[in-house]
Amino acid sequence: MTRTVYFVSGSPFAWRVMLAMGLKGLEYEAVELHGSKGDLKTPEYLQLNPRGKVPVLVDGDVTVYESLAILAYLDRAYPEKQIFGHTPADAALIWQRVAEVDAYLGAAMVGAVRPVFTGAYEGKESEINESFATIRAEITTANQWLGDNDFIVGNTPTAADITLYPALAMLARVGSAIDVPGITPNLPDYTSELPALVAWMKRIEALPGYDAAYPPHWR
Amino acid sequence: MTRTVYFVSGSPFAWRVMLAMGLKGLEYEAVELHGSKGDLKTPEYLQLNPRGKVPVLVDGDVTVYESLAILAYLDRAYPEKQIFGHTPADAALIWQRVAEVDAYLGAAMVGAVRPVFTGAYEGKESEINESFATIRAEITTANQWLGDNDFIVGNTPTAADITLYPALAMLARVGSAIDVPGITPNLPDYTSELPALVAWMKRIEALPGYDAAYPPHWR
Repeated sequence: MTRTVYFVSGSPFAWRVMLAMGLKGLEYEAVELHGSKGDLKTPEYLQLNPRGKVPVLVDGDVTVYESLAILAYLDRAYPEKQIFGHTPADAALIWQRVAEVDAYLGAAMVGAVRPVFTGAYEGKESEINESFATIRAEITTANQWLGDNDFIVGNTPTAADITLYPALAMLARVGSAIDVPGITPNLPDYTSELPALVAWMKRIEALPGYDAAYPPHWR
Repeated sequence: MTRTVYFVSGSPFAWRVMLAMGLKGLEYEAVELHGSKGDLKTPEYLQLNPRGKVPVLVDGDVTVYESLAILAYLDRAYPEKQIFGHTPADAALIWQRVAEVDAYLGAAMVGAVRPVFTGAYEGKESEINESFATIRAEITTANQWLGDNDFIVGNTPTAADITLYPALAMLARVGSAIDVPGITPNLPDYTSELPALVAWMKRIEALPGYDAAYPPHWR
C-alpha cells in the first residue's frame, strides 16, 4: 500500500504528521508543495483537501487532512506503537497537551509570526506583541510540563511531543531573526534559560524518522 | 464513581462534553460556574484547570480539561458507544470534521461573536465582518457535509455532530440579535435556506441527554 504525505517545507502542521510516521515506523512518500507556485490550489490538490492546506495523508483508499485528525487516524490504523497512550488516563493527558499546544501556542504563533513573515504587520504591532507575550508564557508552561520526565507525558514520545516540537523549533530558528520596528518578540534563549527543554529537543531529534521529516529549505 | 462536569451556561465547549456524556449514557453531576462571579479563577478551580476555563471533567481520579481531550478520553474510557467511529477510516473523517469545526467555524466565532458580546468591537468592525463571512461560509460547508445523511458522518451521531451543534445553536439564537453599527452578521435563516441542517438539529435535540445539557440561562 502506498502512503503519501503532502507537505510545505517548514509547515509545523505537516511536520507533526511526518514525525508521527517516523515514530510509528511507517514508510511514506513525502510530496513537497510550494504555495508560491500555486500547488495548494490546483484542482487535483483541492480534490484531496478542499481547504487547500497541508498536510494531507493519502493512505491506500483513505484520504485525510487536518493534522490532528491524521495523528488520530494513524493511531487507530497502526496501533502497534501508540502515540496517544496506553490507558484512558494517559490518552486524556496527551490529548489535553495536544489541544493546549494548538489552542494557545499555535494560535499565538499564527497571530505573531505569520503577519511578520508576510509583511502584514503595520498597525498591528500591539496585537503582535501581545501574541509574542503569549508565546513566551506558553514556552515556559511547556517547560513546566516536562518537569523531570524525558518527554511531555511520561518517558516515551507521544503525540504531545510531536505536536509541540515543530512550533518550538520554528521559534528557535526564526525568533532572533525578527527585526521589525515596534515588534519585540523577546523570546527566551533556550540554551541558557531552558536547558531541560533543549535536552528534550535533542531527544526528539534522535527519534526514528526525524531526518526524513526535517524541512528541506532549512538544511 | 462520581463524574463531574464543570460548565458555564452557553459555553459551546462545555456543551459538547455534556452532549457526549448524554450520548454515551454516562451519569454526571453538572456544576455551573459564573465567570462574572470569579468562579473560574478561584484557587480550587485553578487546581482543576490552571487556564481557568470550562469545561473540566473529573472522573474518579482522572481530571481533564480542553473539550476535545475530554471527548477523546471518554471514547477510550467508555468504548461501548463510540463517538469517534468503529473503523480507522471513520475515525479519520470524524476527527477531520471535529478539527475543521474548531479551526474554522470556532475560530471565526471567537473573532466575531466574542467582541460583539463583550462590547469590544470599536475599530474592529472590518475584521469582525470578515469573521462573519467565514461563519456564513462554514455553515454552508457544514450543510454540504450532511448531504443526504442523518448525521455529519454517516447515519449515527458522532463527535462531529456534538462539536458542531452547540456552535450552530448559539448562532441561531444570537445571530439575529446582533445590532451593532457597522457590523453585518448577515447569517442565513436556517429554516428557509438550510432545511436539511434544521432537520439535523432536530435529530440532535432528540438524542438522550440533550435536555440535561441545554444551557440553563436559555430556558
